[in-house]
Amino acid sequence: MHSQLNPVGSMNMLSQVEVDQLHQSATSELYNLYRNCSLAVLNAGSHTDDAEQIYQQFTDFQIQVLRRERGVKIDLQNPPLHAFVDGKIIKGIQEHLSVVLRDILFTSSRYKDMTDISEQITHITFDILRNADIIRPETDPNLITCWGGHSINHLEYKYTKEVGYQLGLRNFNICTGCGPGAMKGPMKGATIGHAKQRNNQGRYIGLTEPSIIAAEPPNPIVNELVIMPDIEKRLEAFVRISHGIIIFPGGAGTAEELLYILGIMLNSKNQAQKLPIILTGPAESAEYFQGIDAFIGATLGEKAQNLYTIIVGDAQKVAQTLKAGLVDVLTYRKQIGDAYHYNWSLVIEPDFQHPFEPTHENMSNQNISFDQDTATLAANLRRVFSGIVSGNVKSHGIKAVREKGPFKISGDSHIMALMDKLLKSFVAQQRMKLPGTKYQPCYEVIGG
Amino acid sequence: MHSQLNPVGSMNMLSQVEVDQLHQSATSELYNLYRNCSLAVLNAGSHTDDAEQIYQQFTDFQIQVLRRERGVKIDLQNPPLHAFVDGKIIKGIQEHLSVVLRDILFTSSRYKDMTDISEQITHITFDILRNADIIRPETDPNLITCWGGHSINHLEYKYTKEVGYQLGLRNFNICTGCGPGAMKGPMKGATIGHAKQRNNQGRYIGLTEPSIIAAEPPNPIVNELVIMPDIEKRLEAFVRISHGIIIFPGGAGTAEELLYILGIMLNSKNQAQKLPIILTGPAESAEYFQGIDAFIGATLGEKAQNLYTIIVGDAQKVAQTLKAGLVDVLTYRKQIGDAYHYNWSLVIEPDFQHPFEPTHENMSNQNISFDQDTATLAANLRRVFSGIVSGNVKSHGIKAVREKGPFKISGDSHIMALMDKLLKSFVAQQRMKLPGTKYQPCYEVIGG
Amino acid sequence: MHSQLNPVGSMNMLSQVEVDQLHQSATSELYNLYRNCSLAVLNAGSHTDDAEQIYQQFTDFQIQVLRRERGVKIDLQNPPLHAFVDGKIIKGIQEHLSVVLRDILFTSSRYKDMTDISEQITHITFDILRNADIIRPETDPNLITCWGGHSINHLEYKYTKEVGYQLGLRNFNICTGCGPGAMKGPMKGATIGHAKQRNNQGRYIGLTEPSIIAAEPPNPIVNELVIMPDIEKRLEAFVRISHGIIIFPGGAGTAEELLYILGIMLNSKNQAQKLPIILTGPAESAEYFQGIDAFIGATLGEKAQNLYTIIVGDAQKVAQTLKAGLVDVLTYRKQIGDAYHYNWSLVIEPDFQHPFEPTHENMSNQNISFDQDTATLAANLRRVFSGIVSGNVKSHGIKAVREKGPFKISGDSHIMALMDKLLKSFVAQQRMKLPGTKYQPCYEVIGG
Amino acid sequence: MHSQLNPVGSMNMLSQVEVDQLHQSATSELYNLYRNCSLAVLNAGSHTDDAEQIYQQFTDFQIQVLRRERGVKIDLQNPPLHAFVDGKIIKGIQEHLSVVLRDILFTSSRYKDMTDISEQITHITFDILRNADIIRPETDPNLITCWGGHSINHLEYKYTKEVGYQLGLRNFNICTGCGPGAMKGPMKGATIGHAKQRNNQGRYIGLTEPSIIAAEPPNPIVNELVIMPDIEKRLEAFVRISHGIIIFPGGAGTAEELLYILGIMLNSKNQAQKLPIILTGPAESAEYFQGIDAFIGATLGEKAQNLYTIIVGDAQKVAQTLKAGLVDVLTYRKQIGDAYHYNWSLVIEPDFQHPFEPTHENMSNQNISFDQDTATLAANLRRVFSGIVSGNVKSHGIKAVREKGPFKISGDSHIMALMDKLLKSFVAQQRMKLPGTKYQPCYEVIGG
Repeated sequence: MHSQLNPVGSMNMLSQVEVDQLHQSATSELYNLYRNCSLAVLNAGSHTDDAEQIYQQFTDFQIQVLRRERGVKIDLQNPPLHAFVDGKIIKGIQEHLSVVLRDILFTSSRYKDMTDISEQITHITFDILRNADIIRPETDPNLITCWGGHSINHLEYKYTKEVGYQLGLRNFNICTGCGPGAMKGPMKGATIGHAKQRNNQGRYIGLTEPSIIAAEPPNPIVNELVIMPDIEKRLEAFVRISHGIIIFPGGAGTAEELLYILGIMLNSKNQAQKLPIILTGPAESAEYFQGIDAFIGATLGEKAQNLYTIIVGDAQKVAQTLKAGLVDVLTYRKQIGDAYHYNWSLVIEPDFQHPFEPTHENMSNQNISFDQDTATLAANLRRVFSGIVSGNVKSHGIKAVREKGPFKISGDSHIMALMDKLLKSFVAQQRMKLPGTKYQPCYEVIGG
Repeated sequence: MHSQLNPVGSMNMLSQVEVDQLHQSATSELYNLYRNCSLAVLNAGSHTDDAEQIYQQFTDFQIQVLRRERGVKIDLQNPPLHAFVDGKIIKGIQEHLSVVLRDILFTSSRYKDMTDISEQITHITFDILRNADIIRPETDPNLITCWGGHSINHLEYKYTKEVGYQLGLRNFNICTGCGPGAMKGPMKGATIGHAKQRNNQGRYIGLTEPSIIAAEPPNPIVNELVIMPDIEKRLEAFVRISHGIIIFPGGAGTAEELLYILGIMLNSKNQAQKLPIILTGPAESAEYFQGIDAFIGATLGEKAQNLYTIIVGDAQKVAQTLKAGLVDVLTYRKQIGDAYHYNWSLVIEPDFQHPFEPTHENMSNQNISFDQDTATLAANLRRVFSGIVSGNVKSHGIKAVREKGPFKISGDSHIMALMDKLLKSFVAQQRMKLPGTKYQPCYEVIGG
Repeated sequence: MHSQLNPVGSMNMLSQVEVDQLHQSATSELYNLYRNCSLAVLNAGSHTDDAEQIYQQFTDFQIQVLRRERGVKIDLQNPPLHAFVDGKIIKGIQEHLSVVLRDILFTSSRYKDMTDISEQITHITFDILRNADIIRPETDPNLITCWGGHSINHLEYKYTKEVGYQLGLRNFNICTGCGPGAMKGPMKGATIGHAKQRNNQGRYIGLTEPSIIAAEPPNPIVNELVIMPDIEKRLEAFVRISHGIIIFPGGAGTAEELLYILGIMLNSKNQAQKLPIILTGPAESAEYFQGIDAFIGATLGEKAQNLYTIIVGDAQKVAQTLKAGLVDVLTYRKQIGDAYHYNWSLVIEPDFQHPFEPTHENMSNQNISFDQDTATLAANLRRVFSGIVSGNVKSHGIKAVREKGPFKISGDSHIMALMDKLLKSFVAQQRMKLPGTKYQPCYEVIGG
Repeated sequence: MHSQLNPVGSMNMLSQVEVDQLHQSATSELYNLYRNCSLAVLNAGSHTDDAEQIYQQFTDFQIQVLRRERGVKIDLQNPPLHAFVDGKIIKGIQEHLSVVLRDILFTSSRYKDMTDISEQITHITFDILRNADIIRPETDPNLITCWGGHSINHLEYKYTKEVGYQLGLRNFNICTGCGPGAMKGPMKGATIGHAKQRNNQGRYIGLTEPSIIAAEPPNPIVNELVIMPDIEKRLEAFVRISHGIIIFPGGAGTAEELLYILGIMLNSKNQAQKLPIILTGPAESAEYFQGIDAFIGATLGEKAQNLYTIIVGDAQKVAQTLKAGLVDVLTYRKQIGDAYHYNWSLVIEPDFQHPFEPTHENMSNQNISFDQDTATLAANLRRVFSGIVSGNVKSHGIKAVREKGPFKISGDSHIMALMDKLLKSFVAQQRMKLPGTKYQPCYEVIGG
């Protein structure tokens, strides 16, 4: 199959210099990044979360940018067929393809050499979001980030839709990490809620990054997609633009996200910050949250547990709680003169900002012990779970584990025991990978 | 509870003369019509289809129209609570309330004394639709009417959503009779399909009439509602504005609709007309359609059977078939100079236009026999099913049956036998009424 | 020349019944009305104000309404050429043609037999305006009616543009009677003011009626045109929808308008009403306003003079005064519960509502004397000036005067003397007719 | 006076890093640039073209950017009062202020160190225009650049309005260099033309640069303003985005523009290019164009003369000629695969791209002789006129001339004689400066 389409939005016209940058060349790192991210969004309807397998399945896929009278055309050779309806690309996917062009080019041309300075990282994160028109000062602040597993069971999925519906009825907008499961359900539910409220400006924001986009491609309902340069800027983006956070059941990625936000909120400089965090699932998931809560209590302590509320089996209450919490968020922002749409005053320390590369060595070297403050422990735990996600579904991680064996995770023996238990429950509940194949752990808990 | 709200759309300002017309008065027929229809749309989330019961449940509900600086306000006393989210009316329901005001006033002031002349009836139907902004010559013609039961099983419901989704992906708009089941599923599905195609102009048209609105209230997704004056103008509206018709599984009402459209298409004057008609349901409904098909074959003959296509368990094929059929529809309209958005050239004989009042006497007097042309037989059969719907869910019908016992249906013994069998299958499959109570037939087939 | 075009707006689809009503027929009064009004709007760029001459110049002009797939087409034979740019009709004129179709059909089908009841007349006026989407409760109330002559000198014209510009800068919208001179200048000025304020929703409302439309056709800048059925409903429309009135220099028509509004405001029932009325012109027009003011003082007295403010040569002050006055208008409307966009509470007595037919007999019979209250005297004087307008530029009036000689105007000798003086000054200043021909008075003041 | 306002458009939210960049500091070059350009757009209604005088008049003007909950605020101290209506800033000027923020920040942060490479200069020009949303591939290509004097007489001004009106009636959009006279008239005329065609998307693009913005500030009708970094990129922007060029009467600046475009079109690599160039003015300006034409003939030859058409006193013909020419432009672009909205294929040599600094030395050193190709001669002549503009109205130029006396212009004696004559005619016709003061030439033609 061969298809040509127009990019939509701000990237429908490129300069000669820019087109040249993207010209296909086997050796061009930028082109490969562009090609792979494009392939990922085209492959949205697929039923696997194994990035490597996806790339191997479509080795004959090619993409090119061509200049035409009315801007540029994107030329596709052998794209995944489920991106098309009767031979015509789904508009939502066409938009996502344009976003890939925009974000890869933009980040590449402006931020080729990323900085280490904290203030600059926050500026870059902001600049990328602003360039994607995510930040809209004139609109009502009402963005809820929903985190949770890409592999969840039917009851949990239905519940995420119900929560999204209740949020949509209250005109909340939704932000997730893209992908299936808990990242798709709230958007579908909100779509119906918005429709009943005649809100046709509903925002379904998806934040992704190049290494996860193939395993968790954006559902076409995502109508604002941003590809952040790395997972840490993606996480920073989530927390700075949100007015509330929901955490649904999930596996290692969800644990990473929970540890990230708790680690930041535990920072004493963020003591006065307002940000409602709700852990929620259907009545049947009560036990799951008890496990998570126990793990947090045993590792980060009661102070961390006080940062979130657990609501089980009551979608309406989730939405009402966030609506009430929003008032506090805005009052606080107004009081200290912070922006409604980007939380500048939240302090994010460098150990949450600097990209973590999950090599075997880095995985082994994390300090997982009680001889440090809880925020730092959270940062280190976060990295461990991040590494497990990589070993599970990301192209680089899968390769590394295949070559060198499972990651070795070690540290304080009490924590290792808790961790082993938690990870095992994720495996047992099929949260690590989409069902279909037997899960082979990419990690080994030493002394767990 | 007490609430005031602004009507939206063209009816947000009324003259003194008009407000006076609607002033609350126990003796005013117009006010009562207005009140009851308003109650029905407010009661959209209810789980009963018994109109009488609804009216009795909300005897203390009151509605008034008040004049204010910025137009009029609608004042509600004791409205059903599920129309509200956190005390604020759902926007979709607010629109529906405004539609009630518009349509009841409009029909009342322009068409108080309805005419019998066929050409005038068609003009009235058109005028009401035009006043409701249903007819939009500048838009692409792409309206599919979905008929089917309000009481269908879970598999069937899921399938109607799937069909709606496939239609939405192809930018079809949806028209149904309002209400739950097969009238709601396609709209929900299309909403998701439209979202993926970034179509935020999706139309979810609901056509209802005062006697059915309480039993089958418009779901808030319906974003264009019209209350036609009677069932016959409602049916005429469906067929003149549609570019294709889908019939999902259903009960007596669905049978009425099928007989109506077949009766018209059997008219020799409509021989050249193009209008795709598809009977469809999930794989599990195959048997249901065999029953319907057999009944049509035995009563109206093979010619009638040739007017529709049965597709089982293939939502995508349904959508593709309608897309292919649309080309023929438009080619034909263009060729004979007919309008794309209102099928003027379709001939609808007076016996399909004149309102049928389902009294016991009228029910008994229908000529159900083979000694007439098939179009007339279809017209008479249509009336019988129409009466059964009335006895099942409409306020007047329920009362009449309670007072005088079941309607007596009689006629040709062969047809009676077929009819009895068909109706019994509807009962067995719980298609007559929403589940919850035991169904007590409102009819008796004599000699069946 | 032969041209076909689509009507725009709500009248782009007509029913068979409606098209039939308008079918060309020499004997059809409705068709002739439709044709003549259409011709008038097409002839907008012409340089004559003699209605009869216009109709005679285009005897071979024909217009037809044809049914097509996408609604109806308007078919024009031999239309005036200045309605076209390079063979394509100017969009503004296309809209005006559609308005003619809408208003002639609407009034004809709903209000064929006009009522005499005051409350009904007000309802009809409202209904016609609402159908034309003139009344928009959700918008800010800010409509200024500008009255004044169609034949004014260059300095006056420039000044009307300057006033319009200052109004536009303050986001006022403009309403006039259509036509050149003081009815066009404020709209052109406001267009520039609106552009600078990035207001692309500027409203330039033109109210006309069939007998004046040819002499004073709508300039294409008029983006909301309404053809009221007669001059009295047109005047009622002006005063009920306005939030302030400006009167520029003018001739008999302007005098009619001034007397109309003063007569109504003098009514003791309207004592509490708020409506700023400003008489204004360039510094050079100071003397003109002294003449008008003296005439009002001598006939209707000081109380009438107190109803208006005269501002000479200060466009900015005019706009600022109206802005300040608007606050009072809205405060009053809110306080008594009246609508912001239609002044229901203003009392207009039947002698200002009933159409005046300017026959020779009716003109002679007006009671112009001091033995009546001032409101009634204003009403009678208004009729006399109305008749003079008819004799000057309207088709019927011109014919009547040609056949029977000038209208005879008689009454109290003091008033007659004042009137004669005033009318003579209008003649001397070329305010009666557009320059180009010598003005031959259509009236004779008896005892003046 | 003290006022705070929101920037509009994409610059309504800035990062901490960006706000810091602009923080007021007497020593910051960027802040001074920002302040002066802001002052210039606020001073739009002024009646002087002397940049230095303007800056001196408002020494107490201050501007600051402040962070607030809903983005940033611009804080103004002692701004020019005519930017306000009743104490509220004119919306158009508010937009221009936002543009200053956008363009000064954007250019500063992305293109601090400008490149010399031709391809990169074209990319920068494109990037700045794209960032300003000037380039819109999905719209119809229809942009006409109007060049001409800021100081023209009343008849000429009226004619530029008439041409703008005729262009507007044909839905052309207008681009000028901002400022009064021939840069404002076409926009005002087009506004009325667009209004009649119900085109409320009319574009009135103003391209300026920091050194000219004070002398020729954007009229508030300009609804898309771009501040290019220097005059050469501004000129390149004009010719790459236009589909036709009109040159009205003017002085040194207009001569510069004419020489620029002729120099480029004379380049043999541009032989096949299509770009209609029309010199036009009212009948009374016939002699002016004879002078210009004679000068071009004598210096650049007949080939240069063939590149333009002179139309005198026929605004409609100007518009019709451009409409016909547009077809050729688009056909050519399509044929060679060039963009409709940015003429990439036009070759602009480095001597037209590199900024010319009009020092006394540079002015003396231009090679004005026949011993070079005509394109180069045009480039050199262009620089000389550019220098005269600087000496007339730009802050730096005025200062330099005051300190060191008039620029000395020398070269081939025949050309000098022609030049002297042409410049003298500009002086005599008051084209060099706005009337009001006696013009003191900033140049001296040696051997003229």
